[in-house]
Formats: sequence, structure tokens, C-alpha cells
Amino acid sequence: MKALVYRGPGKKQLEDMPKPVLREATDAVVRMTKTTICGTDLHILKGDLPTVMAGRILGHEGIGIIEEAGTGVSRFRKGDRVLISCITACGKCEYCRRGMPSHCELGGWILGNTIDGTQAEFVRIPFADTSLYLIPQDADEDAMVMLSDILPTGYECGVLNGAVKPGDTVAIIGAGPVGLSTLLTTQFFAPANIMVIDLDDNRLEVAKKFGATTVINSTDGKAVEKVMAMTSGKGVDVAIEAVGVAATFGLCQEIVGAGGHIANIGVHGASVTLHLEKLWSQNITITTRLVDAVTTPLLLKTVMAGRLQPTQLVTHHFALADILKAYDTFGNAGREHALKVILNSK
Amino acid sequence: MKALVYRGPGKKQLEDMPKPVLREATDAVVRMTKTTICGTDLHILKGDLPTVMAGRILGHEGIGIIEEAGTGVSRFRKGDRVLISCITACGKCEYCRRGMPSHCELGGWILGNTIDGTQAEFVRIPFADTSLYLIPQDADEDAMVMLSDILPTGYECGVLNGAVKPGDTVAIIGAGPVGLSTLLTTQFFAPANIMVIDLDDNRLEVAKKFGATTVINSTDGKAVEKVMAMTSGKGVDVAIEAVGVAATFGLCQEIVGAGGHIANIGVHGASVTLHLEKLWSQNITITTRLVDAVTTPLLLKTVMAGRLQPTQLVTHHFALADILKAYDTFGNAGREHALKVILNSK
Amino acid sequence: MKALVYRGPGKKQLEDMPKPVLREATDAVVRMTKTTICGTDLHILKGDLPTVMAGRILGHEGIGIIEEAGTGVSRFRKGDRVLISCITACGKCEYCRRGMPSHCELGGWILGNTIDGTQAEFVRIPFADTSLYLIPQDADEDAMVMLSDILPTGYECGVLNGAVKPGDTVAIIGAGPVGLSTLLTTQFFAPANIMVIDLDDNRLEVAKKFGATTVINSTDGKAVEKVMAMTSGKGVDVAIEAVGVAATFGLCQEIVGAGGHIANIGVHGASVTLHLEKLWSQNITITTRLVDAVTTPLLLKTVMAGRLQPTQLVTHHFALADILKAYDTFGNAGREHALKVILNSK
Amino acid sequence: MKALVYRGPGKKQLEDMPKPVLREATDAVVRMTKTTICGTDLHILKGDLPTVMAGRILGHEGIGIIEEAGTGVSRFRKGDRVLISCITACGKCEYCRRGMPSHCELGGWILGNTIDGTQAEFVRIPFADTSLYLIPQDADEDAMVMLSDILPTGYECGVLNGAVKPGDTVAIIGAGPVGLSTLLTTQFFAPANIMVIDLDDNRLEVAKKFGATTVINSTDGKAVEKVMAMTSGKGVDVAIEAVGVAATFGLCQEIVGAGGHIANIGVHGASVTLHLEKLWSQNITITTRLVDAVTTPLLLKTVMAGRLQPTQLVTHHFALADILKAYDTFGNAGREHALKVILNSK
Repeated sequence: MKALVYRGPGKKQLEDMPKPVLREATDAVVRMTKTTICGTDLHILKGDLPTVMAGRILGHEGIGIIEEAGTGVSRFRKGDRVLISCITACGKCEYCRRGMPSHCELGGWILGNTIDGTQAEFVRIPFADTSLYLIPQDADEDAMVMLSDILPTGYECGVLNGAVKPGDTVAIIGAGPVGLSTLLTTQFFAPANIMVIDLDDNRLEVAKKFGATTVINSTDGKAVEKVMAMTSGKGVDVAIEAVGVAATFGLCQEIVGAGGHIANIGVHGASVTLHLEKLWSQNITITTRLVDAVTTPLLLKTVMAGRLQPTQLVTHHFALADILKAYDTFGNAGREHALKVILNSK
Repeated sequence: MKALVYRGPGKKQLEDMPKPVLREATDAVVRMTKTTICGTDLHILKGDLPTVMAGRILGHEGIGIIEEAGTGVSRFRKGDRVLISCITACGKCEYCRRGMPSHCELGGWILGNTIDGTQAEFVRIPFADTSLYLIPQDADEDAMVMLSDILPTGYECGVLNGAVKPGDTVAIIGAGPVGLSTLLTTQFFAPANIMVIDLDDNRLEVAKKFGATTVINSTDGKAVEKVMAMTSGKGVDVAIEAVGVAATFGLCQEIVGAGGHIANIGVHGASVTLHLEKLWSQNITITTRLVDAVTTPLLLKTVMAGRLQPTQLVTHHFALADILKAYDTFGNAGREHALKVILNSK
Repeated sequence: MKALVYRGPGKKQLEDMPKPVLREATDAVVRMTKTTICGTDLHILKGDLPTVMAGRILGHEGIGIIEEAGTGVSRFRKGDRVLISCITACGKCEYCRRGMPSHCELGGWILGNTIDGTQAEFVRIPFADTSLYLIPQDADEDAMVMLSDILPTGYECGVLNGAVKPGDTVAIIGAGPVGLSTLLTTQFFAPANIMVIDLDDNRLEVAKKFGATTVINSTDGKAVEKVMAMTSGKGVDVAIEAVGVAATFGLCQEIVGAGGHIANIGVHGASVTLHLEKLWSQNITITTRLVDAVTTPLLLKTVMAGRLQPTQLVTHHFALADILKAYDTFGNAGREHALKVILNSK
Repeated sequence: MKALVYRGPGKKQLEDMPKPVLREATDAVVRMTKTTICGTDLHILKGDLPTVMAGRILGHEGIGIIEEAGTGVSRFRKGDRVLISCITACGKCEYCRRGMPSHCELGGWILGNTIDGTQAEFVRIPFADTSLYLIPQDADEDAMVMLSDILPTGYECGVLNGAVKPGDTVAIIGAGPVGLSTLLTTQFFAPANIMVIDLDDNRLEVAKKFGATTVINSTDGKAVEKVMAMTSGKGVDVAIEAVGVAATFGLCQEIVGAGGHIANIGVHGASVTLHLEKLWSQNITITTRLVDAVTTPLLLKTVMAGRLQPTQLVTHHFALADILKAYDTFGNAGREHALKVILNSK
């Protein structure tokens, strides 16, 4: 089968790889119909993630059809149309039972990381019963792909961890796909004001369309000043970091109000400075989280009910055979005005 | 001054009454600009509320201008435009500190009940600092009147107590003004389905406009059957009782799913049957609440942000001088297609 | 093997029954070392539970040794010493994922109900990985038996659902084994006052030893009066019903204070009267729950840490061969001063 | 009257100062009967707190008798025995209503900071109704002094913010008076293990007596190693920082487990390094808080119920006239084996 294979830092190829087979009774093999590329895949390609070794098929998102299900799989059978969660959950370990499968003793984020992933014609999914979701008959397939990772990530790490509530003033730092997913799902809780801060005017334009009440281009270094002015000097209730660098986490610390929340989503490669000399007395809550994807069923309901339109996040479509082009587009998102790209098999 | 006075069961008059004066340093006297009539006022007129004695000026909602503020009032002064909370809060007792001023030792629901109310040209407000809210400059005044009682009631007793969350299926029993306030504010939490059940097709039509995803006229006795069919036999996540009779509370018990919530808003005059022989094992939560009106600031923010349009609830306007006509309209809400009526003091 | 078999209302026998075998790959067969009798078993023997058919081996509590584990069982192997949960959890269905395995689509309370139970030399446990717990090496075995049902029941249905918090005044109605389990675990949250109400002075004496700060014998009909006097007329923060009859649920309604909780644990055979005409405005929360036994790992930790001494609940020991005597003792708990009886195999 | 006056960095004197008088109607003047010294007072004397100006009477803890109450004070009168909260709450502003009077617009921590404090024969207390608590008749007076600041601080900033729950493993870094207050109140929630880490063996000995299940002297630099060994490499559920320096906050980051909490209590004078490169994916919650002292009524109930023995924290008694000696003892706590010192007036 065709698959996108990581061949070491800076190297990726579309290769012929053996079709995966069942290894454990709880496995399923899924024939992929749609997948996508994540910002994390770009990090892997830079060589930033030492857990990913050369030869690995990338990808941890997508939907497909059950090709074969192990004898221990009871909730799915051949032919079922399924949504693949980016988080593999054994469903039995202490972490899974605590609702934190991101740290599952046997799973977690393994697809396209420590085992082969979804940017291929077929993928093996361990613990299929607790790592796949049945796709409702009349669901939009592109929308479903957005439920593998990006929407649960924005919702769980940003909105839920940020404890957004009606009437709040929320600032989202970073208007990439994850920041925009946060923007879409933060509206579940009727905040009064949603500020989106980024360096790219095009993305800020998109943020406006997606429901931001204020957009701020922080290129001029005046974002703090502007946010404080708009909040009568009190700062925001919730600051959500969706970039992953020290500067944006620092910005969150400067704009969060007393009693407020800083919800970190970004993947950080270096430590940051925490201004406890100021914040110790400010009754702040800071959270971090690798997505658990435990809200996928809930998000699925909101999509089916029309309360959430994930296809807004999809800007480009490619055939799986053109995945190198897709990487080029996604890797130059600013130039291409790209958010999420869909890869269709066949 | 002119005021609507309760003269015993079945009797009300628009009378000349003495203008109220400050009694305590923490009092304010407010010149009313707008008030309204509550379903509770109709109950009082039937003689159902023994705490209300003949001679009482009715009304516990409205907005106005501070006419005079006691020396102990620090947050308002003459000329301020204020929203009057239906709940008077001393701000100091155990209940106020627990966030439950509905049971304030010196306040609670006293306006138009144990002290003179707002259906008058002037009203005395005890504990003004903690029982009034400043109205923002560009606020719609009719909208503000809806924040005195009906919107906090729907939101606190129905939505918050019902613990509505994204993706939920919510059933609201009763599409009167309180049920509709619940309908408007339940949308703060992005439920997937909102069913509204009533006997009046006109009100159900309104419910549809206000965001109900399904409306059910229960006249045919098939509401339970319909709800169960629409929920694959599982029942709803949240059932909200907004009527106050045994039959509707019974309906809630029949449609609530395992792990679900029944939030009672209705004012009940008699006991009801609780089917513990069925519900003991169903992991149900049942709540009751006299509105605390502690969410008024939050609701005010959502109104000012345009997330909530309370004026949808206003169907009629009258001059205060025509309050008897207004009572007639409101008292025949079905015939008049009336929701809330606004009384303007010129 | 020997097993206690239900032979229709009023009839039970210690019989030779076939040793259970694995049916599904996810099953385990456990050789029982200790089991016990539950009040529910007495209900079954009265014929109160139509789901239990003649020929059924009773019992849903106990510990044992894995005799055989199916190929789909990954967390246990032959020889492991395990605690059997009264709730069987598939770990995959919507209810299991919501943390509510009491309503598991394939499990729930089935042991000694719809499938053969633990009052036998061997028992088959479906979904072994998610329905058994490994017993730590130095654990007291009698204590472990108390973790199968009674302690999670008191803790989840009474203490957690009642939302007991430090400083609270808690009333527990009923000082049987479940009420006493509630009493033990309510002390996890440092309530200021714990009142236990019962008709039996002996049990109240036990309650005192277990940490009740006040005991009330309600035979004289003055329990309400006494509770109200002790709470300055305000009522209790949490009233926990651990009996299952209308009178005790009624008592809870009379003593609960504004803003308080009524947590029902009792199994009710008939409907009760809910005084909404009084309670609608009292900001009350009423909960019901079939135990989910999701707190077993937490309770196990508190037992191992010495924060909870479950063996206090054990008053009698019998050999499994003498189970009919054990039923007689447990069935005449008042006369025998019995709480929980342990049945030892071998 | 006699008072301890700050005269600039390093300088304090017991001086004759004018007796305070009522300034606002909501003020009370309290005749102090007992006060104490806080670690913060030592910081002030070092010149670390620029808000405290020379000439200020120090102290923000203590109990006394109402000497005079303003006309706006309704809950206290001359002769009442009262507990003074370290946090002054107007009871009306947005922050007070949100339950966060630490950031009260007119109050907060002002006693012995921006207005004269309690280390004197008399003190003026603004907003007396919402900043004082009536002392129950049979209360131990030394115990009451511990409720002004130190116990609410340990409980709110450490235990509640750390979300300690039954069965948890909790590590408290720092066994000074605040750390020990945390240790006492963390036991409200029945954690399985409580580790206390400090450099002083004497304090660790005290921690053991106060309920620590493990004490670790971190002088050898092996604290992380030991904690990880005792938690099977998983880390703790809750790490509570009660020192206020970068090293101890760093220690918290190293020992907190996935899904765990870091609750900062310490007053930090400098920024710290936050290892987001490791923690971004660890589902961690970090909190900061200036005590709100909103749990004082709850703590008072637990003290009166005998669930909490605050007098354990008191090691020394002095007459107010000997306050300079008391400062010497408290300032050399290690040498003197001092925890809290009580200063008696009269």
C-alpha cells in the first residue's frame, strides 16, 4: 500500500509499504478514506520528536472503513465506517479509568509516533473498541476528520481547561488550526468577548468569520496594552496559549486578570519564565494537557446537531497520492492561506 | 403616587399611595421607569400567598432612577439608572455569603411580598448596594427589565441546576415566560437537542423561534412516548419543570434518562409523587431553587455582548396608568398571545 | 461445587452445582475464598426482585483467586488474588465511559441477579479486566470483602452524592451496614456533626463507636424536633437515606436545611410523597444512585493507608458450608447484633 | 496606646500611638486581646514590601473585643468578642461577590500593610460586618488567632487549590507554620499519604506529630529520588509549595505526577523557571492564591467540632509589652523551635 514514511529529519517519502495486519485480538485494520496533516507532523519532520523513528508511517487523524477486526473487538465489524481517535485507549489502565487516556499505559498518542499511522491506505488500530467511534449515517466526512484531534484538542486543552463560562472575556493567542478550533468550541459557553491575537492578518480575518469579537495583530508589540485597555485594566478571564513558544506564554501572564485561567495548548520545546513574583497573589490557574479525546462523543453530538461546523477548518483537498503536495501546502500555511488539508484515498 | 395595590384575594386597585421614604441608611428610593407583571403576581391575586397582606403594593421587577440614597449606600447615587433585583440581599448573612441570597436572613424575595413593590411610581429598596445593578449606558431598557427575575430564574433554577452541557438533550416542560427564559439561556451551553413541551400551539411556535429543536404539544398524552422515541428509549439528559403542577413533574420523571437531571422551577401548591421505586437506581439528580439572582452580572454581560436578546420576551407595552389593562392582558396570556408586558412610567 | 441457590420466594438451598467455565474470552473463573451476604439477598429471597429467577446462585460480593482467565483477559492471570466488584463493567459502552457502569449495557449489577453469583466455591466473572481488582499483598482479606459493595455504596450514593464537605452537619437515617459504611466514609470529609438516626439502640451504640457525634432513637417520633433543635432550626446540610421506606425519606425532607442535600441510598419498593409545596423554594438537591463502584481503587488506597477500617463492619464468621446458619444470623441482625457476616471457603 | 511600629527597613519599635477612632460608619474599633506575628511581618521588616510605609502599625491577625462600632455596623456591637480576618472585605464589589475578597476593590490585605494593624492595644477594622467573625462562647482563644490567616491560607491556597481528595498522595514542601497548617487541613480529605519535605529535622519531627505519613529532609538533594521511589515512579497527586523560592517550586515540578496539581502558597520575590517543555503534555494544574479567608466560618465549625486543633501551632506566649522579644523568638524560629507566638494584651 501507499504510505507517507518518515525517513529521518527533513526526509519524508510516499512509499509502498506492507499492508498492516492484526497483531492482537483487540486490533482492527482500517481502510483509510480520509486523513489529514497535523502541525505535530511538521515537528516530527524537523526531527523534534525523538520518539518517532525513521521508517515510521506518519499521521494520527482520519476516518475509514473497518477492513478486519480482531476476535476481541466487540463493538465494530468489517464494513463499519469509523472515526479514528488520535489517542489510543486500552480502556482498562488506571489512567484510562481516570478519564486520562492521553497517559494510557499501553496507548496514548502512539499513532504515527511509536506505531505506524494514518497517512496510508490502511492502518492498524490497537484497542479498537475504545479508540474508534462509529460515524453516523448522515455525517459529513470532512467534518469527522476534524474530530480525530484538532477539535478535541481545542476544546479539552483550551476551553474546558480554561473553564470558559458565559459572560467571560477570553483571549486566544494563536489563530492556527488549533487556535481556531478553540475559537469555535469556546462559543459553546457563550463568552461575552473573544479576542484572538496573532501575527497574520489573514488568519485574524478568518478568526473574525469564526466568531472572534476582537482580533489583534500583535506585530506592533502592543497586544498587552490593547487587551488591558479593552478590559478596563482588569485583564481577561481566560487566556489560551495555542502557539507553544515562550513569548506567547509570557503574553498570557501579562493579560490574565486576578482569578483568571491560563490554558496552555501549545507544544513547548523549551522552558518558560513564570512570573510568580507577580502572580503568586493573583489567584491564577495554569493548566497543561495532552488531549485525552474523551470529549469526542460529545463533540460528535454537537456536530450532528449543527451547533459546530468543523468543515470551516478545511481549506484544501488532495488525493492521498498527492500527499507531498499537501505537505507543501500545509507547511506553507501562511503563503497558501491553509488551515486543514484533507487527503482523500482513492 | 400611583401604585397597584393588592386588596385581598381577587382584588387589586390602582391607587394613590404615599411616596416611599428612606427608613434605613442602606435604603434607596428608586423612581420607577419600567416595571412588569410576574406570574407570581397572579398567584398573589388568587390569594395563594399568605405572606402578602391586603394593602401591599405588588411587583418585584423593573428599572428606574435613584431618587434618594441613604448615607450607608456607597455604590449608587441620585440619578443613577438601576436594575432592581427581585431578590433583596443584605450581603452579610450566612446565606448571602454562601451565594444564596434567596434565603437572606433580612431580605430574599420581599419586594411586593412583605414590603411594597415596584408596580408604582417609586419604590424603596433595602440594602441598595447589594440589591441593585447599574445599567450600562447603551443598554436596552426593556431588556434590562427581563433581568430582574425571569432570566435569572430560568438560568439559575433551570439551566445551571439542570447542569446542561454541550451535546445534551434537554426537555423544557412549559413554554410560558419562565420556560422560554430557560430556553434562551440553555443555549449558552450548546445542547444538541432542546425539546419544548406545552399544551399551547402558539407558545410552541414561539419556542421554535427561540431555538427549540423540537416542540411537542402534550395535549394528546403522548409526550412521553415521543420523547422516548426521539432518544432511542434512553430519555433526556435534563428535564426542566417550568409549570408547577404534579402532572408536569411526573412527566419529568418519566422522560429523564439514567444519570440525568430534573430541575424544578415551577412554584408548587401541592405535594407530588416521587417514583423512587423506579428512580432509586437511576442515578438521578433533582433540584429545587428559589432564584438567587446571583447571575445577574453575568447575564448582563451576555446581553451587552449580544449573546442574549431578552426583548424577544416582551410582547406588550402599557403605561403604568393602564396597569389594570396590562393585568388583563397578562392574565389572559393564551388569548392575548402575551409573554411579558412592559409598564412604562412615562 | 457447593453453592447457595435461590429456589423461588422463601426458598434457598446449599446445593451441588456444576463448576462454572469460561464462556467469553473476557471472562475469568474465580475460586472464592471469602464472600458475604447483602441485605439485597434477603430481598431476593422474599421474592421482591423479579429479575432473579429460581436456580440462581446468589451473592455479588467477595474475594478469591483467579482459577482460569480467558484469552481476552490481560490484567489478571491464574493465581492472582482478586476483589470482585458487585458491578460488572464492560468498560466500553457509553455508560462505562461516563463513569456510570451501574448502567453498563452488558453488565451492571448482574452477579447473583441475572447470572450466577459469589456464594459458591467458584464464580464466573465477565469482563474480568474491568470488574476485578488486584488485592495488595498485605491487605486484610475481611476488609477487602467490604470493598465489593457496601463501602462503595455508602461512599458513592451517600457521601459523594450528598456532597459532604468540611464543617457540615450530616444526618444518616438508618444504622444498618450501609448506613454505617456511610458513617465511616463520611468522615473522609471532616463534617462537624454526624447524627445517626435509627430505631435500634444497639446499632446506635455501634454508630457512636464508629464516629457519630449524635445518635437519635426515632422510636418516640421526635427525631425531627431533636434535629431542628440541634441545628438552631436551620436543618442539616446533608440528609442521607439508608433504609428505603417512605417514612425515612419523609424524615429527610423535614430535616434538610435550605441549600441542603438529600442523598438516597435505600432500595425503595414504593413511591414516596415529595413535598414540593414546601421544598420548591428551598434550594434542595435530591440524588439517587445504584452504586457504580468506580471509587473502589480510591477506597482501597484509604484502607491500605489505614484511614478506613472496614473490619469494624464484620461481626460474624462462618464456613461457606454453614451458609444457611449465616443467613439465619444475618436475617436476624437485630437479635444477633449482626452487621456483616463473612463466609470462608475451605 | 502601645503598638509595634515599622520605622523603615530593619527598624521596629514598641511605641505610644494614638488610639484609633471610627472613620467610616462601617468601621469598628476593636480592643485587641491576642495577636500574633506572621512571616510576612518579617518580610516587611526587611523592606521587601514597598506598600508598607514607615510609621505603620504592623499585624493582620488576632482577636479582641468590640470597643466601638460605627452606625453602619449591624452585626456586631460593643462588647462582642471577635475574630479579625487578615482580609478586609467590603462585601459589595465584584471581587467580594465572586468570593475573592483578597482582591476587594476597597479592602483585601490592608491591615498592617496600607492601614494600621493588630499588633497594638486597639485597631480600626473597616467593613467590620464582613471582616470580623463572632467568637463562640466556649472557643479556645489561642485557636481563634490561628483562624485569622494561617489556617485559611493553608486550607484555601494549599488544600482546596490543590484539590486534595481521599486516597491521594500529597507532598507539602516546607514545614513552617503555613506548611503545617496545610498539613493539618489536608487531613480533612483523607489522603492516603502525606509527605512533608523540609531542611529542618525539628520541623519534620513536628510534621510527623501533626500527621505526616512520611517526612523527608531534602538537605541531601535526594528528595525527588525518594518521592519517585515511594510513588512507583508516578509522582504525587498534589504538590504544595509553602516556601516561596525557585528551588522548592522546581521540586514541585519534578515530583508532580501526570494529571496532578501544584498549589503554590509561597510568597515569591523572583520569577521561576516553568518546564513547559516537559509539563505541556502532563495534564498539570498550577494554582496561585492570596488567601481570601472565605473559609473562616467553615474552619471555625471544624475547630468547634474538635476536628481541627489549631493550638498545636502555638509554641510561645508573650505579653504584648514584650513583643520585641516575641519578634526575636519568631525571627529565630529554627533556633527557638518556634511555630506561632501568641501576644496577650493586658
